[in-house]
Amino acid sequence: MTQTSFAQVYKELFPFWDEISESDREFLCRNSFDLTYPKGTTVHNGNECSGVILVCSGSLRLYIMSEDGKDITLYRLHKGDICMLSASCVLQSITFDVFVDAEEDSECYVISGSAFAEISARNPSVKIFALETAVSRFSDVMWVMQQILFMSMDKRLAIFLTDEMSRISSDTITLTHEQIASYIGSAREVVSRMLKYFANEGLVEISRKGIKILDKKGLRKLAL
Amino acid sequence: MTQTSFAQVYKELFPFWDEISESDREFLCRNSFDLTYPKGTTVHNGNECSGVILVCSGSLRLYIMSEDGKDITLYRLHKGDICMLSASCVLQSITFDVFVDAEEDSECYVISGSAFAEISARNPSVKIFALETAVSRFSDVMWVMQQILFMSMDKRLAIFLTDEMSRISSDTITLTHEQIASYIGSAREVVSRMLKYFANEGLVEISRKGIKILDKKGLRKLAL
Repeated sequence: MTQTSFAQVYKELFPFWDEISESDREFLCRNSFDLTYPKGTTVHNGNECSGVILVCSGSLRLYIMSEDGKDITLYRLHKGDICMLSASCVLQSITFDVFVDAEEDSECYVISGSAFAEISARNPSVKIFALETAVSRFSDVMWVMQQILFMSMDKRLAIFLTDEMSRISSDTITLTHEQIASYIGSAREVVSRMLKYFANEGLVEISRKGIKILDKKGLRKLAL
Repeated sequence: MTQTSFAQVYKELFPFWDEISESDREFLCRNSFDLTYPKGTTVHNGNECSGVILVCSGSLRLYIMSEDGKDITLYRLHKGDICMLSASCVLQSITFDVFVDAEEDSECYVISGSAFAEISARNPSVKIFALETAVSRFSDVMWVMQQILFMSMDKRLAIFLTDEMSRISSDTITLTHEQIASYIGSAREVVSRMLKYFANEGLVEISRKGIKILDKKGLRKLAL
């Protein structure tokens, strides 16, 4: 990986790129790393500063975790997305811990948190970009929170299944009930029970292979 | 209310005040209003842009609401606090609706959202201030979310307090936070923070003598 390749990508992704000095641009590239996280590995672990992460390919999942290891997905990052919450040394007002896992083999460019913080301290446009990236995720998180707190389980599960079906472009979802429960902030038993209910209604078919969606329309109606 | 009085308060509250031009300062003061919200009134209603609100006295409650009218308190604003989430035209990346009520008679200075947005567009330091104010609330909201989602700590603590109150036939509990934490299987810091939250909610009063239950009914409701 050469510094020129980083610069090419950064020029596309960072609205501030042409506003900062040549030496600041070089500094960011010199402090960039090309890392590939195999599926299932931990990318960011709570309170450390893992830097600013750009997803080049694959998929990262950002979540929060309870003391007893229960987790809730806040959002996913795909190609072209930037993770700023993993750079706690850049955003000092972020005081909560998030975790990031690779859901698929994921190639990422990672900019050292301290290097990014240094550039952000002397370039208001960089600081504004970092803050705006974080604030826009605030809205995503609030949406998840409202889903979990206010919506009934059948609706939440129906939304998850229809979303997941489009995401993977298949009508068969191979996640375990446990995994689904963690995605939608519920318990395995609740998910299993609700899936059984959906199966009885003819909405899905449950087998060892996974959950097959039989009635998209019906699920979408529930998800409204 | 004269423009000079606004300027005096803004000089104290806004770190950017001395960095913007005299005419921008005058523009903000000309677009400021001195409003008193009687206890119980709605200050901000979801999707409108109510402007940037500075609390001079009293107390505002910021919350989210479900379709069926259930609400969850995210945080409260007291003297000297600034509400930025009510200025959706300033922070375009905030796409969720919050509601703000006056919990007491509250005197507020309100800066027109469009005026603040105009100044923020030409002064990076103003924009950074607005974003940082929003991001710091992100952390508060995540804390509330984690309490609610994972620990049901509020529930566990409410159950413990109501049980203990009946056990000792007194409305004042003299256990230390450490002791309570060990009873309910949590950490002292978590208990202290949650008790502070309960105190803000008017459920308990914390003093050197112990924890006095002010609102039995409210605690019992939490314990359900």
